[in-house]
Amino acid sequence: MTQNIYDDEQFFAGYSRLSRSVSGLAGAPEWPALRAMLPPLRGARVLDLGCGFGWFCRWAGEQGAASVLGIDVSEKMLARARAETADGAIVYRRADLDQVDLPEHAFDLVYSSLAFHYLKNLDALMAQVHRALVPGGRLVCSVEHPIYTAPTRPAWILDAEGRKHWPIDSYQAEGPRTTNWLAPGVIKQHRTMTTYLNLLIRLDFTLRQVEEWGPTAEQIAAQPGLAEERERPMFVLIAADRC
Amino acid sequence: MTQNIYDDEQFFAGYSRLSRSVSGLAGAPEWPALRAMLPPLRGARVLDLGCGFGWFCRWAGEQGAASVLGIDVSEKMLARARAETADGAIVYRRADLDQVDLPEHAFDLVYSSLAFHYLKNLDALMAQVHRALVPGGRLVCSVEHPIYTAPTRPAWILDAEGRKHWPIDSYQAEGPRTTNWLAPGVIKQHRTMTTYLNLLIRLDFTLRQVEEWGPTAEQIAAQPGLAEERERPMFVLIAADRC
Repeated sequence: MTQNIYDDEQFFAGYSRLSRSVSGLAGAPEWPALRAMLPPLRGARVLDLGCGFGWFCRWAGEQGAASVLGIDVSEKMLARARAETADGAIVYRRADLDQVDLPEHAFDLVYSSLAFHYLKNLDALMAQVHRALVPGGRLVCSVEHPIYTAPTRPAWILDAEGRKHWPIDSYQAEGPRTTNWLAPGVIKQHRTMTTYLNLLIRLDFTLRQVEEWGPTAEQIAAQPGLAEERERPMFVLIAADRC
Repeated sequence: MTQNIYDDEQFFAGYSRLSRSVSGLAGAPEWPALRAMLPPLRGARVLDLGCGFGWFCRWAGEQGAASVLGIDVSEKMLARARAETADGAIVYRRADLDQVDLPEHAFDLVYSSLAFHYLKNLDALMAQVHRALVPGGRLVCSVEHPIYTAPTRPAWILDAEGRKHWPIDSYQAEGPRTTNWLAPGVIKQHRTMTTYLNLLIRLDFTLRQVEEWGPTAEQIAAQPGLAEERERPMFVLIAADRC
């Protein structure tokens, strides 16, 4: 089973204070880019893998989705998601995405925000996702960018002239990376861009868009701390259609 | 017009001494991965963009290609290519790839090795490539990886413990990068992975394979200096089909 760090007290407390936890989708700077990849949701059957507090599920409900299933491994997150959801079209289910069973041909959209880089068995999950989508259905997902996950010492480095860079090493060495983000010992899985894209291609998905998210000038003006995100991409956003 | 650095005396002399210039395809460590992306060449009409000394053109001829057109901007390289080519099915033509005109539906394969990152007008060239391919035809190309082209100070950094990293900055700032590779003032164009992939997707190419080349264990055993290429990818190899 994948590490369930979101149910760790310290991690959960820290995560709950992040902008994206307090303000929801509006607090996630990559959300406008991810939203632009979505198909029309009116009448759609939607699956959210790693739904967390349910912000996307509720938003999809507001867009007129016919049904929304949110899956997450974290009991704490699902408890808050359920408490904050009144829409009867939205159902939450607890499961480990590394060994989940999804129904066949049941969804028009599979969505996942920043969850896949925690998983060990992404090949198996993606095969499930392909099977769970109807023909013509779409996968829209975000993951931490391989440039972000690769380094063994992932932190900005300031050189003698005060210029900032991000230190890449071990790019081709896929596998676990342990960081101390919000709590000690958080385990993420580094995968190359090659691995993410070819996994989808091999499953016969058609890639529709690949975005290495960076902040817009307007976002940096409103939130100057985002400027460093133009130095190296933190997230990759992918839209792919099931044939 | 794009800088024609290959006709610079100093650059040409240095380039001519590289393993890939002396030994041809066998001297390029990424060649086995690129070759694996190629369709069968027997009877195929092949276009090589940035053909250099003509190594690939001659190889394609040996595989039974019906015709091979090699295009390059460098007079010095084409002179050597012509001198070393006896196969009547191979034709070389001098042109600047930033403003080339290609015939319509004339090729089964368009190949390009490490040329596109010199070009300013890649959008226009890719539209030409799409038009030049027959339906079902394939594009196979390599470019310097965005991780390799992004940095404003592209050189390995050794930390106090002797660990090596590659300093990423300016990733989202696409445009020219001037380096002193083989000669001073060599201008390459940095583009993100997003830009390369979405350019092909927008033209209705179907992405078939994306490889961030890294050396195999066997290659490192034979040539230990290649080991650092596992720390960060130097090349990206792409295969895409015209619908």
